[in-house]
Amino acid sequence: MDMNKMVMKLSDRANVLTETRSNKYYELRSSLKRAIDSEDTEGYLAFGNADAGRDPYIPEDHIRQAAKYAIDHAGTDLVYTPAPGLLEVREAIASKCERENGYEVNPKTEIHITVGTQMGIFCTLQSLINPGDKVLIPDPDYSGYNRLIRFAGGVPVHFPFKEDDDGQTRFNFEAMEKVASTDIKLMMFTNPNNPGGYLMTRDDLEGIAEIAKKEDFIVFADDLYEKLVYDDYEHISFASLPDVKDRTVTIMGVSKTESMQMFRIGFIIAPEWIMKAVSRLASSILIRSSYISQKALLAFLKEEEKHRSKRVNLHTKGRDYVYNELNKIDGIICNKPMGTSYVFPNHRELNPSSADFAFELLSKGNVSLNPGHMYGPVTAEGHQRMCIASPIKRLEEGIRRIKLACEQM
Amino acid sequence: MDMNKMVMKLSDRANVLTETRSNKYYELRSSLKRAIDSEDTEGYLAFGNADAGRDPYIPEDHIRQAAKYAIDHAGTDLVYTPAPGLLEVREAIASKCERENGYEVNPKTEIHITVGTQMGIFCTLQSLINPGDKVLIPDPDYSGYNRLIRFAGGVPVHFPFKEDDDGQTRFNFEAMEKVASTDIKLMMFTNPNNPGGYLMTRDDLEGIAEIAKKEDFIVFADDLYEKLVYDDYEHISFASLPDVKDRTVTIMGVSKTESMQMFRIGFIIAPEWIMKAVSRLASSILIRSSYISQKALLAFLKEEEKHRSKRVNLHTKGRDYVYNELNKIDGIICNKPMGTSYVFPNHRELNPSSADFAFELLSKGNVSLNPGHMYGPVTAEGHQRMCIASPIKRLEEGIRRIKLACEQM
Repeated sequence: MDMNKMVMKLSDRANVLTETRSNKYYELRSSLKRAIDSEDTEGYLAFGNADAGRDPYIPEDHIRQAAKYAIDHAGTDLVYTPAPGLLEVREAIASKCERENGYEVNPKTEIHITVGTQMGIFCTLQSLINPGDKVLIPDPDYSGYNRLIRFAGGVPVHFPFKEDDDGQTRFNFEAMEKVASTDIKLMMFTNPNNPGGYLMTRDDLEGIAEIAKKEDFIVFADDLYEKLVYDDYEHISFASLPDVKDRTVTIMGVSKTESMQMFRIGFIIAPEWIMKAVSRLASSILIRSSYISQKALLAFLKEEEKHRSKRVNLHTKGRDYVYNELNKIDGIICNKPMGTSYVFPNHRELNPSSADFAFELLSKGNVSLNPGHMYGPVTAEGHQRMCIASPIKRLEEGIRRIKLACEQM
Repeated sequence: MDMNKMVMKLSDRANVLTETRSNKYYELRSSLKRAIDSEDTEGYLAFGNADAGRDPYIPEDHIRQAAKYAIDHAGTDLVYTPAPGLLEVREAIASKCERENGYEVNPKTEIHITVGTQMGIFCTLQSLINPGDKVLIPDPDYSGYNRLIRFAGGVPVHFPFKEDDDGQTRFNFEAMEKVASTDIKLMMFTNPNNPGGYLMTRDDLEGIAEIAKKEDFIVFADDLYEKLVYDDYEHISFASLPDVKDRTVTIMGVSKTESMQMFRIGFIIAPEWIMKAVSRLASSILIRSSYISQKALLAFLKEEEKHRSKRVNLHTKGRDYVYNELNKIDGIICNKPMGTSYVFPNHRELNPSSADFAFELLSKGNVSLNPGHMYGPVTAEGHQRMCIASPIKRLEEGIRRIKLACEQM
């Protein structure tokens, strides 16, 4: 068989997801990726992506109990659940939205429970984006948006955050206004910002709402980290603003603050006109999410405030440690994130290229962060994303390696 | 807000999945679908789709134990598993393939663990099919293929099974040969056939292999029901035939015979040149499948033969009961399936249209089967698919209602 001829049989769209960059960092990273997939990562420490699930980041006891109960007592229950999820879970989501997020949702027509939140991004983009449609995203923002926008044939349009002297990147209304137009089909953003850790103010969100209505585009509010907010900051849900609910898609999940990543469960909230398409596609792709995970989600939705503050405190310790230590390194300015499980240090003084800097970290310190250019073309460049959701001992070893590598630059 | 104008913002592809048929059956069905999604199905009995998970169809005890153990002891384990799944699970899949299916698979490059098997269908089609590409499928075959082929822009090309006097639809090599050509990009089929219950012979599979090589197309072998085979029949894996592995994609899962539907877990096996694209897409859509479900799958892959025969015996009772009872109804010829959890009775004498017959069943007997036309345009017409994976008491009530409705036709 001529394998080269066979590979020609792949679809054109299959190549859209291929990594197009080729440099020494990506070569090293792709060999590491193979190592990760083979679980052969002896001696190598990664902090780029969330690495939770390692003690002490485990789901609360009552959630584990609920999942185990579901496994043993499914009995005559609807294990093959309705495609959008068990109604009792959707009802619990609706009452959470009303109670905590300040807006009303119809559990029968506006909620679909997904396998994680990534699936909500994919289904929304596939349901809304035609080839050539423009999608507005901040720089920096979640690295998963770009390739899924391109997979739908869309064109990402970035606008820069501004960066303060303390390394904090912030929403930049003027920059957004400059590129917003009726050409935009959709705007997507994480709040708090992943990777930058910035939490939108009410003013920021009202500014976005105003432009969205004026230029008539849809808003995708990625609220995955809504509960992972530090100090006295408070998360505001975009969908709770006046007159935007009919053009707003929101995703939320429980893999982050909640350490429930073992369940792979999240949900998407959208007005019925979008939800019909999203739900049809979601059920065509994988029919439904796991019964057990839905029951675990239900237990979470009913849980008490004390659990949440316990977890946020745990993350705060990691954040403060990493923030302090990284700022001790000459040439690095580390932000103090208002939310998310990431810091996004600026290392331009040591090396303006985040790919090159990541390469140095890997080859000199055997430690991996995620290079900033994955998160945006301009503001994000010259940064690394580091996940702080790890036990302190592991973070200490990571910091030791980062320091070691930086000393050799 | 002008909602009609908003709906125009949906992508063109979002409409591909819309149900295009409009008749009294679909109207009734869509109101029922809403009822199902709202879990408001008092008094209505559905046998069209698998309805397992209702006692006595629950996962074996050792599988539930493994899942509960995983929940409590994840600890420092890789809860955020590698995207293709935990290596130990992929290794167990590879050894199962060698032991039971007669072919070798590389666990590091040729296996991806998916959320159910539907996702394997979606990712394969997206990775292989360009707009206009032709996909060969038997009539009847799984109803989920058509819409996902169309969603990828492909064109389904059906070829008819032949039907014996005893109602059994069978693979028809001559009919396949007539439509096979180098224009075909991919052939897909379930084995045993869903909904027809036909199990491919070695001759059938060798015939397909020969044409696939001659016309140079890829084969998608949907082996979801490989273990749900009755009497003394034996399932043969297409991928085990000589010289076809490099052009064969196989999916398998544990939601059927194994009653593990609460875990939503399956896997896809493909040569590396296809797997690279499939795996990239799968991880872009939802990153990874649940850690808990992977551990449950592992327990299943290591389980003993006795569990399997126990479950097949249970299904055999349901099959025999339904087969005998349906054949007592004047105007109905019911096949005795060799595999799957379905019977596919022919009701042409009572009503040649499966949509109309389904409407009559629903309106006169408050019982729902899946109309044959969902499974193919010609052979499948004039049939209904009925799932036998239900407790006997429930099947008895179903049969009572079907008889009642038929008496009024």
